[in-house]
Amino acid sequence: MKIGVLGFGNVASATVQKFMSNRDLIASKTDVQMQIVKVATRTAARAEGQVPEGCEIVTDCWAVVDDPTIDVVIELIGGTDIARDLVMRAIANKKHIITANKALLAHHGEAIFELADQMGVCVLFEGAVAVSIPIIKTLKESVAASRVTSLIGILNGTSNYILSQMSQHGASFDEALAQAQQKGYAEADPTLDVNGEDAAHKITLLSSLAFGVPVDFSAVDFKGVTEVEAVDIAAAARLGYQLKLIAQTQLQGDEVWVSVAPALVPNASMLAHVNGSMNGIALTGDLFGSAFLYGSGAGGVQTASAVLADLIDLAQGSRGGCYVGLPNMGFKRSAIKTRPYLAADARQSRFYFRMRVEDKVGVLAEVSSIFARANVSVSTIFQDEGEGDLADIIITTHGISTGQVQKVMPALQASAASGHGIVIYPALDE
Amino acid sequence: MKIGVLGFGNVASATVQKFMSNRDLIASKTDVQMQIVKVATRTAARAEGQVPEGCEIVTDCWAVVDDPTIDVVIELIGGTDIARDLVMRAIANKKHIITANKALLAHHGEAIFELADQMGVCVLFEGAVAVSIPIIKTLKESVAASRVTSLIGILNGTSNYILSQMSQHGASFDEALAQAQQKGYAEADPTLDVNGEDAAHKITLLSSLAFGVPVDFSAVDFKGVTEVEAVDIAAAARLGYQLKLIAQTQLQGDEVWVSVAPALVPNASMLAHVNGSMNGIALTGDLFGSAFLYGSGAGGVQTASAVLADLIDLAQGSRGGCYVGLPNMGFKRSAIKTRPYLAADARQSRFYFRMRVEDKVGVLAEVSSIFARANVSVSTIFQDEGEGDLADIIITTHGISTGQVQKVMPALQASAASGHGIVIYPALDE
Repeated sequence: MKIGVLGFGNVASATVQKFMSNRDLIASKTDVQMQIVKVATRTAARAEGQVPEGCEIVTDCWAVVDDPTIDVVIELIGGTDIARDLVMRAIANKKHIITANKALLAHHGEAIFELADQMGVCVLFEGAVAVSIPIIKTLKESVAASRVTSLIGILNGTSNYILSQMSQHGASFDEALAQAQQKGYAEADPTLDVNGEDAAHKITLLSSLAFGVPVDFSAVDFKGVTEVEAVDIAAAARLGYQLKLIAQTQLQGDEVWVSVAPALVPNASMLAHVNGSMNGIALTGDLFGSAFLYGSGAGGVQTASAVLADLIDLAQGSRGGCYVGLPNMGFKRSAIKTRPYLAADARQSRFYFRMRVEDKVGVLAEVSSIFARANVSVSTIFQDEGEGDLADIIITTHGISTGQVQKVMPALQASAASGHGIVIYPALDE
Repeated sequence: MKIGVLGFGNVASATVQKFMSNRDLIASKTDVQMQIVKVATRTAARAEGQVPEGCEIVTDCWAVVDDPTIDVVIELIGGTDIARDLVMRAIANKKHIITANKALLAHHGEAIFELADQMGVCVLFEGAVAVSIPIIKTLKESVAASRVTSLIGILNGTSNYILSQMSQHGASFDEALAQAQQKGYAEADPTLDVNGEDAAHKITLLSSLAFGVPVDFSAVDFKGVTEVEAVDIAAAARLGYQLKLIAQTQLQGDEVWVSVAPALVPNASMLAHVNGSMNGIALTGDLFGSAFLYGSGAGGVQTASAVLADLIDLAQGSRGGCYVGLPNMGFKRSAIKTRPYLAADARQSRFYFRMRVEDKVGVLAEVSSIFARANVSVSTIFQDEGEGDLADIIITTHGISTGQVQKVMPALQASAASGHGIVIYPALDE
């Protein structure tokens, strides 16, 4: 099995290095001979002496995807445009693909997986989501006989680190972000992490694997952590919750919804214990019941572990000359649902409302009656001192639809609760 | 693919029933036609009307394992003697095996896996350990490129339920066991659960998968929860620990050790949050770093989920007419280490000592000096009121060898610390 690697950044260099240093271990798992024959990188000098004997260093990625001797292309250059063109060409050339590029797959997955199924090749991507958690394989294989009903994840380590610092050490958002950058948990440009988009890429893929729906990034609505305030973290804690950036996909009736947003997580759940830059995923299904998986979400060496495990999977599949395995997205292409998504206002959830109000008699009663008139069942309510002459009224509801939330809003905005801001977060069930 | 099922108890009937009720889902994952053609059970009447159309109910298990039309035998009768004979015969007849029988594999796994490798068939057993946690597949496949360094698990739901009830609700051992039996978490005869043997069966298999050592039940020393006292649960809590029944296997240098014993688990670890009848497993390795997996450890339907996932794995492997996949125990037979175990007294761990002493001047000093003379580095020490005129001295150590513990003992037994009992538990690192 001859392998070509695209890119020689953090993940790619770790992959090549660990392929060499764990060579004996890998050979103890499979008889298939694996050989990295080409590495493509713009900065060839960086790769000099860092690749296996006999491996050619080239600067042209096309020389890898068009090389007729190569069986497997490991794409680690990142980005969505050139990466797509290279991966599509490699598949057209009947090469198997291993990638850790969640953005590529979230945006172009449908085209990629369709062509791969047509050409009879595998596209493996365990390294694309929550690298130290084997969630791709778990969804495709371990729960293959179960109907998954929900998947709730903390999938962005940068955001989780920021919220943990704010919650545990009283840091401000800006301080926490600066610390994340200093520790290497956040990029110089952290936009995709803190605005929820990275988590949205990942939940797009997991939703597709869990429910057999198309890979459709536009089906996710996402919101990040940039507007989270300390007061809500504290109020959540008082109610027995942690505020986390939650990526979730749920089956409601026969329809699916997918979202990324800050949400209240009950302390009794394992997700509440996912702190710092770690990732965690809670999964439920009809047969296995519930499971929770936890591990690092990023890191060059950790991602290399997932990429090399995919490589061993491929090698084993090639033994005997036939590539086998479940379909690339778990479900057969003919079984993928075509109109699977629930209307946004029909989504059921519990909700947290915080309304900053003038601290005067009658406001609490007025706000309560708005919820009552809208037929929203309130779970807890309390009023707290806010800043200056203001107070915070905090309400958690029982399960209601997003549509009901939207119906409460005009009345709240016309009431004493308006003017100083209304904050709303979903709250997960116990 | 034609399937025969041995047994029709709790797990087998759930497996057959869910095979039927999730038929459409399973068909959406694979094109391979699967058919349960025979179920063998002594109480044929129970299975009447509960099996798929065209499935024959027989009372003779040999009629399944010797049936030349059957490709896969699902063994769910339990026990180690008849089950071994049936499984060995089925393998000799070139049938693939799926089993959830941890006792069978812990005791006879070497013979079974050796014959299976020789005959070129698969023995799959995801249902044998922590059923809702995909730990078998994770070890064989997801971390295949990583050198595993430790696996620490809560693998027996009955014991964990008992310790949780004692810790959270102040129940006595007997009360907690009675509650476990009432809730169906414990068998009428709970011996194998509470004496640590069931967890030992499971860690035997996981150690072999993690480190490529033989399946050798005799290499595990195990101790259960029957002697755990409330006073140690309380003292552990005061020190920031939970007392849990811990099954662990560690790589120390190039050697492996495997044990089951009550141990102190730091509150900061995910394992400390595994309560009630749930299972959890913390895994570390050179590339992926650390991961933690959590889920149900038992239950008919949950086990059926694992058994049916193994079946889908087999079906996919059979596509194209060649069975592939990693070796049955992850490592190739030629790579399995032959003398892999560390001497018991060389094992390194932190330890918790509780000594019940006469409450008089000088005892604490005497005990401290014994530890100092034995060169055992003490981490924390405190004295607490015991029963009547007695006091409890509680010491936790830094990492020491089991041999050093054994050296401290004669001096302690000759001191004021003797006579009222000395309790020792290992303590996991933060």
